[in-house]
Amino acid sequence: MKLNDVIEARKKSIEYLHNANIVLTEKEKDNLEIADFGLNDLDTMGLQLLVYENNDRYCAKELILFPRQTCPEHRHPPVNGRDGKQETFRCRWGEVYLYVEGEPTQRPQAKIPQKYEPYLTVWNEQVLRPGEQYTIPPNTLHWFQAGDQGAIVSEFSSTSTDEHDIFTDPHIKRIPEIEE
Amino acid sequence: MKLNDVIEARKKSIEYLHNANIVLTEKEKDNLEIADFGLNDLDTMGLQLLVYENNDRYCAKELILFPRQTCPEHRHPPVNGRDGKQETFRCRWGEVYLYVEGEPTQRPQAKIPQKYEPYLTVWNEQVLRPGEQYTIPPNTLHWFQAGDQGAIVSEFSSTSTDEHDIFTDPHIKRIPEIEE
Repeated sequence: MKLNDVIEARKKSIEYLHNANIVLTEKEKDNLEIADFGLNDLDTMGLQLLVYENNDRYCAKELILFPRQTCPEHRHPPVNGRDGKQETFRCRWGEVYLYVEGEPTQRPQAKIPQKYEPYLTVWNEQVLRPGEQYTIPPNTLHWFQAGDQGAIVSEFSSTSTDEHDIFTDPHIKRIPEIEE
Repeated sequence: MKLNDVIEARKKSIEYLHNANIVLTEKEKDNLEIADFGLNDLDTMGLQLLVYENNDRYCAKELILFPRQTCPEHRHPPVNGRDGKQETFRCRWGEVYLYVEGEPTQRPQAKIPQKYEPYLTVWNEQVLRPGEQYTIPPNTLHWFQAGDQGAIVSEFSSTSTDEHDIFTDPHIKRIPEIEE
């Protein structure tokens, strides 16, 4: 990912948060995390994150998604003898289509470019609108896409250890390098 | 506390959340927790809570405070061999004066009726405005008061077990009965 793309995505995320009345400090604005998972296709497969707190007991973030942007399929395995990360997604703004293990939904609302289809294997759809939430058990495959407007989702969870996440797409690097 | 006072406080809390663009489901509106700590003096010593999620690993809530309303001093002791609750307060709206153990602040901003003074023993002041947050370690005395406008504070924490909280004021019952 190019540094300019990171700066652009940060700027757009800050606008989304501002429109949803979510206030950030200046330091938080400068540190907003832009994740393209090493795919170099941020607007399609990517995610913006504002980490409020991540300690050895709990974690809280806002996830910002641009229109139809998708967070690729992954799971949170056990780490250091503790259960994998458990997380609760609460939609704050926009609409999000969350896919988890279980009975595949007949006409899912996500729109996926063909080349990514092989790496999206769970299709039980949970639609989240503002005020609605869903808790994903540890070590369970999931992925999600924002609707046509984009979305803001609060994530409440146990400790976050992104470097241990297991993605279905073997091309993914969770923590890629940024080119200056 | 009278049932009518509970209904009134719920209505007012829902207005606060609405004004801050925080969306609730109808079920959440009906279940908003009104805590007067058995003191029967809600507007002075009390707190309104919206619990999003509380499981055996993490907890997330919104705390709604009316103007100058105070959550009385307490700490979260170890429970069942686990460290006491650790919590991160993030101010969303209004202003909150948080008091924790440490060097007493010379001219604290909280205004306290004389009869409650004996039960407020820690005076290290942390002022939180929207976007600002503070993490309170386990088993540490703390209390907080909203400014003149009231406040909304997000609480991210380890598991919440309110029934184990230890209050400085011996008159307090954390989970009192409601009179119909």
